[in-house]
Amino acid sequence: MEELVGLREGSPANPVTLHELWGRCPRIRRGVRGGLEWLKRVLFRVGEDWYFLMALGVLMALISYAMNFVVARVVRAHNWLYQEIGDSHLLRYLSWAVYPVALVSFSSGFSQSITPFSGGSGIPELKTILSGVVLDDYLDIKNFGAKVVGLSCTLASGSTIFLGKVGPFVHLSVMIAAYLGRVRVRTIRESENKSKQNEMLVAGAAVGVATVFAAPFSGVLFSIEVMSSHFSVWDYWRGFFTATCGAFMFRLLSVFSSEEETITVLYKTSFRVEVPFDLPEIFFFVALGAICGVMSCAYLFCQRTFLGFVKTNRFTSKLLATSKPLYSALAALALASVTYPPGVGRFFASRLSMGQHLDSLFDNNTWALATRNSSPPWPAELDPKNLWFEWYQPEFTIFGTLAFFLLMRFWMLILATTIPMPAGYFLPIFIYGAAIGRLLGEALSVAFPEGIVAGGIVNPIVPGSYALAGAAAFSGAVTHTISTALLAFELTGQLVHWLPVLMCVLAANAIAQSCQPSFYDGTIIVKKLPYLPWIRGRRLGSHPVNVGNFMSTAITTLAKDAPLPEVVKAVTSTDTAEYPLVESTESQILVGTVRRAQLLQALLARPPSWALGGQRHLHDILAGGCPTEPVTLQLSPDTTLHQAHHLFELLHLQSLFVTSRGRAVGFVSWVELKKAISSLTNPPAPK
Amino acid sequence: MEELVGLREGSPANPVTLHELWGRCPRIRRGVRGGLEWLKRVLFRVGEDWYFLMALGVLMALISYAMNFVVARVVRAHNWLYQEIGDSHLLRYLSWAVYPVALVSFSSGFSQSITPFSGGSGIPELKTILSGVVLDDYLDIKNFGAKVVGLSCTLASGSTIFLGKVGPFVHLSVMIAAYLGRVRVRTIRESENKSKQNEMLVAGAAVGVATVFAAPFSGVLFSIEVMSSHFSVWDYWRGFFTATCGAFMFRLLSVFSSEEETITVLYKTSFRVEVPFDLPEIFFFVALGAICGVMSCAYLFCQRTFLGFVKTNRFTSKLLATSKPLYSALAALALASVTYPPGVGRFFASRLSMGQHLDSLFDNNTWALATRNSSPPWPAELDPKNLWFEWYQPEFTIFGTLAFFLLMRFWMLILATTIPMPAGYFLPIFIYGAAIGRLLGEALSVAFPEGIVAGGIVNPIVPGSYALAGAAAFSGAVTHTISTALLAFELTGQLVHWLPVLMCVLAANAIAQSCQPSFYDGTIIVKKLPYLPWIRGRRLGSHPVNVGNFMSTAITTLAKDAPLPEVVKAVTSTDTAEYPLVESTESQILVGTVRRAQLLQALLARPPSWALGGQRHLHDILAGGCPTEPVTLQLSPDTTLHQAHHLFELLHLQSLFVTSRGRAVGFVSWVELKKAISSLTNPPAPK
Repeated sequence: MEELVGLREGSPANPVTLHELWGRCPRIRRGVRGGLEWLKRVLFRVGEDWYFLMALGVLMALISYAMNFVVARVVRAHNWLYQEIGDSHLLRYLSWAVYPVALVSFSSGFSQSITPFSGGSGIPELKTILSGVVLDDYLDIKNFGAKVVGLSCTLASGSTIFLGKVGPFVHLSVMIAAYLGRVRVRTIRESENKSKQNEMLVAGAAVGVATVFAAPFSGVLFSIEVMSSHFSVWDYWRGFFTATCGAFMFRLLSVFSSEEETITVLYKTSFRVEVPFDLPEIFFFVALGAICGVMSCAYLFCQRTFLGFVKTNRFTSKLLATSKPLYSALAALALASVTYPPGVGRFFASRLSMGQHLDSLFDNNTWALATRNSSPPWPAELDPKNLWFEWYQPEFTIFGTLAFFLLMRFWMLILATTIPMPAGYFLPIFIYGAAIGRLLGEALSVAFPEGIVAGGIVNPIVPGSYALAGAAAFSGAVTHTISTALLAFELTGQLVHWLPVLMCVLAANAIAQSCQPSFYDGTIIVKKLPYLPWIRGRRLGSHPVNVGNFMSTAITTLAKDAPLPEVVKAVTSTDTAEYPLVESTESQILVGTVRRAQLLQALLARPPSWALGGQRHLHDILAGGCPTEPVTLQLSPDTTLHQAHHLFELLHLQSLFVTSRGRAVGFVSWVELKKAISSLTNPPAPK
Repeated sequence: MEELVGLREGSPANPVTLHELWGRCPRIRRGVRGGLEWLKRVLFRVGEDWYFLMALGVLMALISYAMNFVVARVVRAHNWLYQEIGDSHLLRYLSWAVYPVALVSFSSGFSQSITPFSGGSGIPELKTILSGVVLDDYLDIKNFGAKVVGLSCTLASGSTIFLGKVGPFVHLSVMIAAYLGRVRVRTIRESENKSKQNEMLVAGAAVGVATVFAAPFSGVLFSIEVMSSHFSVWDYWRGFFTATCGAFMFRLLSVFSSEEETITVLYKTSFRVEVPFDLPEIFFFVALGAICGVMSCAYLFCQRTFLGFVKTNRFTSKLLATSKPLYSALAALALASVTYPPGVGRFFASRLSMGQHLDSLFDNNTWALATRNSSPPWPAELDPKNLWFEWYQPEFTIFGTLAFFLLMRFWMLILATTIPMPAGYFLPIFIYGAAIGRLLGEALSVAFPEGIVAGGIVNPIVPGSYALAGAAAFSGAVTHTISTALLAFELTGQLVHWLPVLMCVLAANAIAQSCQPSFYDGTIIVKKLPYLPWIRGRRLGSHPVNVGNFMSTAITTLAKDAPLPEVVKAVTSTDTAEYPLVESTESQILVGTVRRAQLLQALLARPPSWALGGQRHLHDILAGGCPTEPVTLQLSPDTTLHQAHHLFELLHLQSLFVTSRGRAVGFVSWVELKKAISSLTNPPAPK
């Protein structure tokens, strides 16, 4: 340090050798100093928010890895307890059920006691935030602890509760992004900027998905598809950068902890590469897409209905209002009882963890053919090398187990989504879709044991590829996204089925999008969050509708020349956040806006002498320090509905004033737009 | 037909059996008819533009396949001629050189004689069209033939000219999309709609890339990154649908023609899956990205400079102006002479076709290690099983050949881009990047023959994976895109290197984007096409700039109460396309716009009696039938530069009027915005 100080200050009195050495060559010293200055300039020229983005990615990866680590330990402890507890059925049942019940009720109670926002996935709320609505405190860093602890408990209860971590993780990373954004603003003393903050949030959403699945491509695309209706290429690049940092760090940690030898994908598959599928199988892939689409509609409908039922039913709504942990414990008890392995659980592979579900369903073997001749007995303990033995019950066959899984998990999943705790709903849906695909794939492999195209080299059907396609299609249909196809490839590392899987996902989406709102939109509807409906591609008759037809004309304008009593009357009789300020009562020419809060303050603080003196007007108040804001954008009555919708959607606006020849004649907000759009036709889904 | 007619009209006199049969069960008949009606309604409810999108995809796939087919035949004929012509060097040289010279000069002459727009890739022009500029005739279907024939000739000249087909294919498919859009408008009698047309064009751009590489994911993403700065999720879905149809059809055709057994990727690789790379190799991948970034800057700079030189140099500019085919022939002759295989060509594998270049560079073997002990002689004929033997010259080694390839192709590629004919510049860049990566990979495999991590299982370095990363990084850096990483995977079918390749592409992009405009932006600058500069992420000081600071106040307003001679004077002295119409000369309240052409027409057509009678005013003309248009959007002087830029970019606007308290005070167009942005800082790149 001494040397450095001496070097910087260049004090010749400092008797340090290194300094003397440097002192003798001032040219080199200047050169080095210049070089460092240049490097600093170059590194900072790219804009220091890149460093914040990188920090965001790395932080989220650390959290994700740490959470996985803790959860794995807890799950292992549970398994150990369950194995060691002896053969008494009661004890075994208790050890199986108490764990998740305790975790779930703690998760629900703890997180709800800290913040009421921590339940559910968080994606629906983020969607409304990114569309411009301000949900106070939703992104506050205070919620962070509640969400992390709650989510860890949820995950630790394993496949009993059968929930994932994508949604809350997106919420967590957006929280951190918002926090980092505020830190950044403070560090560089830049005026707080809304669009900059938004950029940070978009990157946060991308990194949330990417650090869960180590999938940067689909992380970015999935978050875009789910969150927004428009996005900029600039945000997309930033998202990629952050997601790559996050995914790299996440996988790097598992190399450092010696879980993996190098950076690999999460659920590696080894499908046949030369002829991955026969051409006619394309037809079955598309059919699988259609099946997944129909199933997703059924799921979405039942889920929304049941959620509504729970909220309106006298008993459950009272329970949820007064004692959330009790409701959670009851639901968890029901789920744990059903999944108890020596009971019903063994008929739908309930001993597998979430990851093992995927590993086994993407398995390369053809179960139906492998179990045709030899029937392995149901193993007493899980065999990590042959996970798929869990799916085989001699008296039930593979088909029975898979079908029973689909049947049971359907209502169990719907029940689990009503538990008020932090939990992700994407991974269970993904697994459910994989089971649908596996069932069809196994059926096909029995129907065509020699492959579909006869003659030449036999290419047997690979049921694992159907599981892959089913997972992508069902999760894509439920969330109304296409990038789940890419996610399936990034999870497995093989792209050989790219066209059939994509066609499967497209078919499923075509059905789901035309029949049901997506999972997240459904939650927005049930939770009554604000949203802007989507003007779909083509709607005849929507073009001639102008702002003049649907704007609200009930505006209270404040004229600059209005006498004070009139102003006070106007302010006390209405409660909008801001008033349009017009030149004079007569001309009504819009000149700016004034915030109600500031106006009230100014009115209250007016000098007492005014009450005595002559007539005072609004402009006296304004001149006395009440700030006004300029109107930067305004609609005209001739603006079309399409244009207005575009503006609101693209610029994340809340409301705009309408002027005609300079006169304030009305205003348009989400409410008016929503009404105007729904009067066109009944929209199938918000976006 | 008879039956059907009878069935539909239900005429009982028609003595057809089927009809009688039907006639007997009116209930079933009604049921079937109802069912068909329902099906028709359902199928058409989704909007019939989906059918147009599908048609677009299928059409482009057919064209792409047919073009590949024809080109392959022509190339095979050339190879046959070259092999059979005997051992005379003169004859062999002539047979090698005459073919491409003839093809290129024909391509250039033919396409230029039909339309001057057919040269080059077309992507820069499409970019300006999609940002809202109207380039007349550029998307006319008349250009289609010229582009198809010209491109076929270019491709048929093979790796001598070393050009691809992506760019022109994007142009072709956008042409067809525009044509289909016009057909659609005519069929369904909908009022022509600009935003609908734009949607079609965006889908067209995606399908262009997808049908060349059979890569729907990267087709969509690449076209988005290259073409636009903002895009809607709705367009992205439509793009996916079209691209999937196109890619599926394209690959289906090669199955039907027995080239492939099933639908597979284009350049299948077989990299090691278990441990695809050692962890420390990540560092080399990022270093490769940096190298590719620096090389791409050099390439972009040289290419733009040389293009400018050719346009300004007296000799070449005269040659290009008067005799384009001659210039093309001279350039082709130079390229063909250099690539003559028994001459210099053998030292940079000039016998390989474009596809064979990729096949050999992505090869799984380690050339440097394979040729260390045994040195295969240079084969007299191409060995399709061991394409990489072409890269080996005993006296030159692998490294010499690869380095010489990079050196020669650098200037050859730049020369080839100046030839005025339809040609794509993406594939050569992709191959060039693959060679950079291969060179580094081979060097590493020599430096670390036992793999990098010592001990345990040896995982030798796979130079093919560096070739993959280099291809993605170099092409990504030159075009300023990230989706080339995805393209590399979709071309090869393996995703195991997803993180290193993505990091490599990000590193290359970071360097290229901060130093040089992209290839397409560079062409926009050289061709002086209109563009809107990009306001980069953060630019301090750009926030307080308002529209009032940079708007143009030199507007000619027409007042409704202006006397006619004044109006005539105003119209004749200026030549803007439309005039703001104001309430009165005194108030200047903006009420609408009037088009110059229509106003002129109305002025010329005014009744001759007016000249005699008393003073007439503009409102008489307007009342006499001259149409005015309402102002749907207006800026205010307080709108910030950021907001105005956003509006122009998002809504594809050309100009807007600025009003202050209703008065027209100025206007803003691209010119003013560009000036305002460039006055902030010197922008590195347009977007």
